[in-house]
Amino acid sequence: MTKVTAEISTSLDGYVAGPNPTLEEPLGRGGEKLHEWVVRLKSWREPHGLEGGDVDAEDELFAASVRSTGAHVMGRRMFSGGEGPWEDDPNATGWWGDDPPFHKPVFVVTHHAREPLVLGDTTFKFVTDGIASAVEQAREAAGDRDVGISGGASVIDQCLEAGLLDELLVHVAPVLLGGGVRLFERVTPRDVEPADVTPSPVGVAHLRYRVPR
Amino acid sequence: MTKVTAEISTSLDGYVAGPNPTLEEPLGRGGEKLHEWVVRLKSWREPHGLEGGDVDAEDELFAASVRSTGAHVMGRRMFSGGEGPWEDDPNATGWWGDDPPFHKPVFVVTHHAREPLVLGDTTFKFVTDGIASAVEQAREAAGDRDVGISGGASVIDQCLEAGLLDELLVHVAPVLLGGGVRLFERVTPRDVEPADVTPSPVGVAHLRYRVPR
Repeated sequence: MTKVTAEISTSLDGYVAGPNPTLEEPLGRGGEKLHEWVVRLKSWREPHGLEGGDVDAEDELFAASVRSTGAHVMGRRMFSGGEGPWEDDPNATGWWGDDPPFHKPVFVVTHHAREPLVLGDTTFKFVTDGIASAVEQAREAAGDRDVGISGGASVIDQCLEAGLLDELLVHVAPVLLGGGVRLFERVTPRDVEPADVTPSPVGVAHLRYRVPR
Repeated sequence: MTKVTAEISTSLDGYVAGPNPTLEEPLGRGGEKLHEWVVRLKSWREPHGLEGGDVDAEDELFAASVRSTGAHVMGRRMFSGGEGPWEDDPNATGWWGDDPPFHKPVFVVTHHAREPLVLGDTTFKFVTDGIASAVEQAREAAGDRDVGISGGASVIDQCLEAGLLDELLVHVAPVLLGGGVRLFERVTPRDVEPADVTPSPVGVAHLRYRVPR
């Protein structure tokens, strides 16, 4: 059985981006700190075309996620930071340049229809008929691999609320952002089933939960 | 050097109590789930006058905290759930009956002056001149042991903002409460220094951080 996993880094105070995101600072003030842990890892650097990187238990956690994921789903804001018609979006080809690090199909949830965008060996497909459709299309594209819900917070919350998630993997970074975009802004109360807790040499706590359907 | 540690259980979505706290359900809807992990432990049961309990790494984490703490600080709401003058508070002697589980001095931050209250071998002192004074009085009372900031969220946030904390110990329970009282509602952005992550057999993640002064 393939699964649908939402994976995201948050601050200790529960933000997945800091205040005042801009094109220059897409993760908002302080938001880059959420991702410092991953940049050092070989399994992150390799798909980004960067050499070197550490190989350890934390790298293996991230590498396993990269290996098992056959397609991604993300929100329009995560893709470009923009909103509204694509022709008005100054970042309409996304944040990642000519060779995005995904190397697999990415389904972007948006209100604005658009032809698929191919950059390197990553294909972005734009889904206008809702989150459930995006997840279903990603599941088909992923074949015998899993679907990774990459964010932002709103897309993850929507997947949770719609009963589309099997698993949550939250990377808690050792920082208080004091504001920004919260994960789980207001979700339906429920138990989640703890799966594993992985400490990190750089102080991130990786908390994995199974989500009862 | 003695230290000041804030220790509290939160949900995965960052609440330390659920919605709609009442005298019958002081932790709000679903809030009891935050504390299920601790009730099974010998080091929690013993000071509550209860027999038995598990002895394991999680018990040792909690036992170490009980041993090292010489005095507690808590907010008025955590003490009684009430507000305003004490004579109007139906729970003016607190939640814990004739023999509270603290067995050490507890400093209650309140706007309403009151003589100390002795119950069993716990003495509650009521501090009306602010959080810094409460922590200072607790520090004196604790002698060569530490000060434990027990909550609620507002008191912990105030301690953090006032630079009174050395350490944060957050117990993340595997539940989404969907609303209630948030920890870190809006704090000043800052890095915290990861100290240790302790998984639990019942799925709580114990995250400890040092707070740079």
